[in-house]
Amino acid sequence: MAEVSMSDQPSIYLDNAATTPMDERVLEVMLPYLRGNFGNPSSVHSHGRNTRVALEKARKEIAGLLHASPGEITFTSGGTEADNTALLGAIAAYEVKHIITSPLEHHAVLHVLQQAANKNNIRLSLLKVDRDGRIDLNDLETLLRDKDSKLVSLMHGNNEIGNIADLGGIAALCEQYHAYFHSDTVQTIGHYPFDLQNLRIDALVGSAHKFHGPKGVGFLYTRKDKKIPALITGGSQERNMRAGTENIAAVVGMARALEIAIENQEQHQKEIQALKQYFKDKLLSAIPEVSFNGLSADLENSLYTLINVSFPPSESNQGMLLFHLDLAGISASGGSACSSGARLGSHVLQEIGTDPSRENARFSFSRFNSREEIDYTVTTLKELYN
Amino acid sequence: MAEVSMSDQPSIYLDNAATTPMDERVLEVMLPYLRGNFGNPSSVHSHGRNTRVALEKARKEIAGLLHASPGEITFTSGGTEADNTALLGAIAAYEVKHIITSPLEHHAVLHVLQQAANKNNIRLSLLKVDRDGRIDLNDLETLLRDKDSKLVSLMHGNNEIGNIADLGGIAALCEQYHAYFHSDTVQTIGHYPFDLQNLRIDALVGSAHKFHGPKGVGFLYTRKDKKIPALITGGSQERNMRAGTENIAAVVGMARALEIAIENQEQHQKEIQALKQYFKDKLLSAIPEVSFNGLSADLENSLYTLINVSFPPSESNQGMLLFHLDLAGISASGGSACSSGARLGSHVLQEIGTDPSRENARFSFSRFNSREEIDYTVTTLKELYN
Ligand SMILES: Cc1ncc(COP(=O)(O)O)c(C=O)c1O
Ligand SMILES: Cc1ncc(COP(=O)(O)O)c(C=O)c1O
Repeated sequence: MAEVSMSDQPSIYLDNAATTPMDERVLEVMLPYLRGNFGNPSSVHSHGRNTRVALEKARKEIAGLLHASPGEITFTSGGTEADNTALLGAIAAYEVKHIITSPLEHHAVLHVLQQAANKNNIRLSLLKVDRDGRIDLNDLETLLRDKDSKLVSLMHGNNEIGNIADLGGIAALCEQYHAYFHSDTVQTIGHYPFDLQNLRIDALVGSAHKFHGPKGVGFLYTRKDKKIPALITGGSQERNMRAGTENIAAVVGMARALEIAIENQEQHQKEIQALKQYFKDKLLSAIPEVSFNGLSADLENSLYTLINVSFPPSESNQGMLLFHLDLAGISASGGSACSSGARLGSHVLQEIGTDPSRENARFSFSRFNSREEIDYTVTTLKELYN
Repeated sequence: MAEVSMSDQPSIYLDNAATTPMDERVLEVMLPYLRGNFGNPSSVHSHGRNTRVALEKARKEIAGLLHASPGEITFTSGGTEADNTALLGAIAAYEVKHIITSPLEHHAVLHVLQQAANKNNIRLSLLKVDRDGRIDLNDLETLLRDKDSKLVSLMHGNNEIGNIADLGGIAALCEQYHAYFHSDTVQTIGHYPFDLQNLRIDALVGSAHKFHGPKGVGFLYTRKDKKIPALITGGSQERNMRAGTENIAAVVGMARALEIAIENQEQHQKEIQALKQYFKDKLLSAIPEVSFNGLSADLENSLYTLINVSFPPSESNQGMLLFHLDLAGISASGGSACSSGARLGSHVLQEIGTDPSRENARFSFSRFNSREEIDYTVTTLKELYN
C-alpha cells in the first residue's frame, strides 16, 4: 500500500468536555420546529400557541428531571449567558460586597466576577487550592464569616481536571452564613443526578451541547425565593427573566437530550467510567512515566467523562502533542476549548502548578466512544513517546 | 356537510413581522452542523477546524452582503441580545451622558435605555412623534447640540406601524454632532439593501428569524473605529465581543438566509409590496371605514412587509378581532408579539394616540403568502364587520 486513502484516516473524537455530538433522537424532535411549527411563542394565534405549548412542556420536563419547579427554569443561549445572568443578577439584587470563588473556575465565571469586582469595588476572594486542585472548605468557612452581603460561586465539575466539588457541603455552609450560592454545573448537568428539592443552591446552569443536545441553548435555574433581575432585557419573555424570541427548536431539543441523559444515566456512567478506567490502565502500561493532573485519575472524585494526562518530557513532541494526535485523526484538548485555552495555555493547569516541561492533554469521553478508539489512541501515544 | 374536517381549516400566516417560517434551503445547510460537523470552533483539532472555517465563512458572507468587514460582525443569540450589547456597550465605552431615542422603539431598545438611564443617572430624551409616528429631525438636531457625550438610538423600520426612518439623514446628523448612533434594524435587514461602507452608522443589528432564517441567532455590526466592550463575557470567542460556544448551525443558516434574501431582494420586494397593495385596496373596498396606523398605508415610507389596520368600532368584535381571525385560521397580530404586546396593548399605538374604541391589527407578509390568502382574509374580515 503506497498511500493511505482518505477513508482510512480515523476520526476519533475524545473532546467531549468541549462539546458533544448531538443524539439523532434529539435532532428528530427539533425538526418540526425548524419546519412547520415556527410560530413566535409570544403570539396569541394558533401558530404561536403551538410553540408556546412546546416551550412550556420543555420547561416542565427539565424542571421535573431536576426536581425543580418550572418557574425556576429560564432558557438562555448557553452556559456562558446563564453564568453571566446568575452572577451579575445576584450581585445587583443582593448588593454583594464580597465575592468568594476559586481560581479554577471557568472563564464564564472568573472573568465576569473579576470585572464586576473591579467595576463595583467589591472584595474578591479566591479560595486556596492544593496541587491537586482541591479547594478548602475551612478556608471557605473563614471567609464566609464576613458579615457583608456575600456571593459564592464554585463549580461542580471542573472542565479541565475533572475535580468534583461537594455541592451539598458548600450549599450548607452558604445557607448557614447567608451567602448567595451559584454553581457552574455545565459539566455535570445530564451526567449526574440533581435533586434541587433537597440541594440548597440558589443558582446553577446547564448547556445542552455538553450532553448531546444542540449548541446555542442552555438554562439557568434560580431558586424561587431568591429572585434576580434579567441580564438581557426587552420583551417580557421567560417571565421577564430573559428577553428575546425563544429558540424553540433548541429548547425542545435540550429537553429531549436531558431526558435521554437522565433516563440512562446509570448505564452511561457505568460504560463511560469503564472506558476511562480502561484508558488509564492501558496508558499507564504503555507509557509508565505519565501522571495525571488534578484528581482526574481518582475515579471517585472526578468526572467520569474526562482524564487529564501529564506526559513525560519529550524533545520530539515539545509543544506538538495535540498536533501529532490530530495528524493521527484523534481530537483531544490541551486546555479548555471553550476559551481557546488550547492556544493560550490553561489557567487551571497553571494555577495548580503543573510542570512546564511536560505536555498535558485532556481526553474526554462520551457514550459514543469505543474501546477500539481507546486502543488506537494509546497505540498512537505510545509511538509518540518512544 | 355536517362538520368541517380538520384539513379544511385554513392556516394562513400573516404575522411575518413577529417571525417567519424558515426557508427549506436554510435548513439544508444547517443539517450537517446538527449532525457530523459538531466540533467546537475554538478547538484546535480537525473537528474544531471544520466548524471554525464554517463560522468565519459565514461571517465573511454576511459582512460582504452588507459591505462591512468581517471583523465588524459579532454573532449573537438574536436581535434583543445584539441591541442590549450595542447600547450598554456604547454607554460604557463612551461614558454617555445623554441618550436620545424615540418612544416608538422596540422594548429591546426602550427598556434597556430606560434602565441604563435610571441606573447611571443619564439624561434620557425621547423625540417628539406626530400622530403618524414620524420623528422630527429638527428636534433631534436641537438635542444633539448638547455638548455632553451622546448616544442616539433610532430604529430603521418600526415593527408595528412600519414607519421607515431616514437612516442616512440621522447618521449624518450624529456624525456632525459626534454622537454614537445605533439603529435597531431587525425589521429591515434582509429586506432592504445596506451599504455600510457609505452609511455612517456605529451599530446595527439583525435577527435571522425575521428573514426566513433560524431563531436564536442574530448579529451585531459595530463600526471598526468605534469599539465597545462585550455584554456576555467569559471565553475569548467572537474576538472577545461575545463569550460562549458558538451556535454554528444557526450561524451557517443565518448566512444562507441572508444570502437568499439579498440575492432576490428586488424580486421579493416587488412581490410582497404588490401583495400589501392588493390587501389594502381589497380591504378598503370591503370595509370602507378602516383606516391605517402610522405610515403603514403609505407604500413609499413604510415597510413593504406590513400594514397596521384600524377597524371601525364594532360591538361584536370588541376586543375579539384577533380571536375571531384565529378561529378562521388566520394568524395576525395586535401589537408586537416580541413582547407579548398583543396581551398588554401596544405602547406604539398608544404613543401615537390611536382611538381606543377601534380595534387594531397588524398584518405582515412574506414571499410565502399568496393572493388567495389575502382574498380569504379580507372575506373573513368583511363578514366580521357586517
Ligand atoms: C465548566 C464550564 N462552564 C461554562 C461553559 C460555557 O458554556 P457554553 O459554551 O455553553 O456557553 C463551559 C464550556 O463551554 C464549561 O465547561
Ligand atoms: C424591531 C425589533 N427589534 C428587536 C426585536 C427582537 O429580536 P429577537 O426576538 O430576535 O431578539 C424584534 C422582534 O422580535 C423587532 O421587531
